[in-house]
Amino acid sequence: MKEIYYFDDLEVGQRFGSGCLTLDEAAVKRFAADYDPQPFHLDDEAAQETLFRGLAASGWHTAAMTMRLIVESEFKPAGGIVGAGLDELQWPRPVRPGDVLCVETEVLEVRASRSRPEQGMVKVRVTTRNQKHEQVQIYVANLVVKRYVP
Amino acid sequence: MKEIYYFDDLEVGQRFGSGCLTLDEAAVKRFAADYDPQPFHLDDEAAQETLFRGLAASGWHTAAMTMRLIVESEFKPAGGIVGAGLDELQWPRPVRPGDVLCVETEVLEVRASRSRPEQGMVKVRVTTRNQKHEQVQIYVANLVVKRYVP
Repeated sequence: MKEIYYFDDLEVGQRFGSGCLTLDEAAVKRFAADYDPQPFHLDDEAAQETLFRGLAASGWHTAAMTMRLIVESEFKPAGGIVGAGLDELQWPRPVRPGDVLCVETEVLEVRASRSRPEQGMVKVRVTTRNQKHEQVQIYVANLVVKRYVP
Repeated sequence: MKEIYYFDDLEVGQRFGSGCLTLDEAAVKRFAADYDPQPFHLDDEAAQETLFRGLAASGWHTAAMTMRLIVESEFKPAGGIVGAGLDELQWPRPVRPGDVLCVETEVLEVRASRSRPEQGMVKVRVTTRNQKHEQVQIYVANLVVKRYVP
């Protein structure tokens, strides 16, 4: 059962969980080779000498995996998950091969649009945690969500 | 020739260009299948009925391609490109198959660290434009950059 949330159904304080995803080393290196080819994302030995002190996932990989978890979660805004942008994003600690990532989405603000009566803006905080329940990524996003038109 | 920029070499107002990348439809769909499986990123026909009115790249795909362009650009901070986070990010217009993306990085602020004398924080604005020179993504990132230790 996947319930669709129109703009009008979303309220400040609502929270949505997600499934979880286990990251393997091959995936870390594959994403890095395609999009972020730096030693600390590609080679465990070279990574020891860097600020990360060991292989770590690209922050953009964490963001991409987080998106996958949200798309497959119970958070189903009408019109899809369409981001106009982010207010902020933090990567407080590295994501490592073997980490299990899960996401929580919390509604922070809902704002109707004057110029576009068929949609509204919904501000959400998206927190990605590892298996120790440590935050590895937090961002605040502004989503465009369809209003219910009978 | 790839010059390395230590923290001490970076100054407010410095700008760095990048090479450019042409996005093809297969890459849009492949990234979407892996990380953002929504109709407007996967299927041109289904995308016509959505807010995007046609196939568009995931914003996270744009961010990932931007990272690739930066890593391969002349902007080579000492210690690599290590982001602590972003202050903001906007996706003002969709990225379409066939678009040619290029990136500009501008130094906005440099700040030494009291607690970590071996590194500093460098705030940069990263702007991604398409072949019409339209902005498709703008973000402000906080990077950790090594100081020069003789």
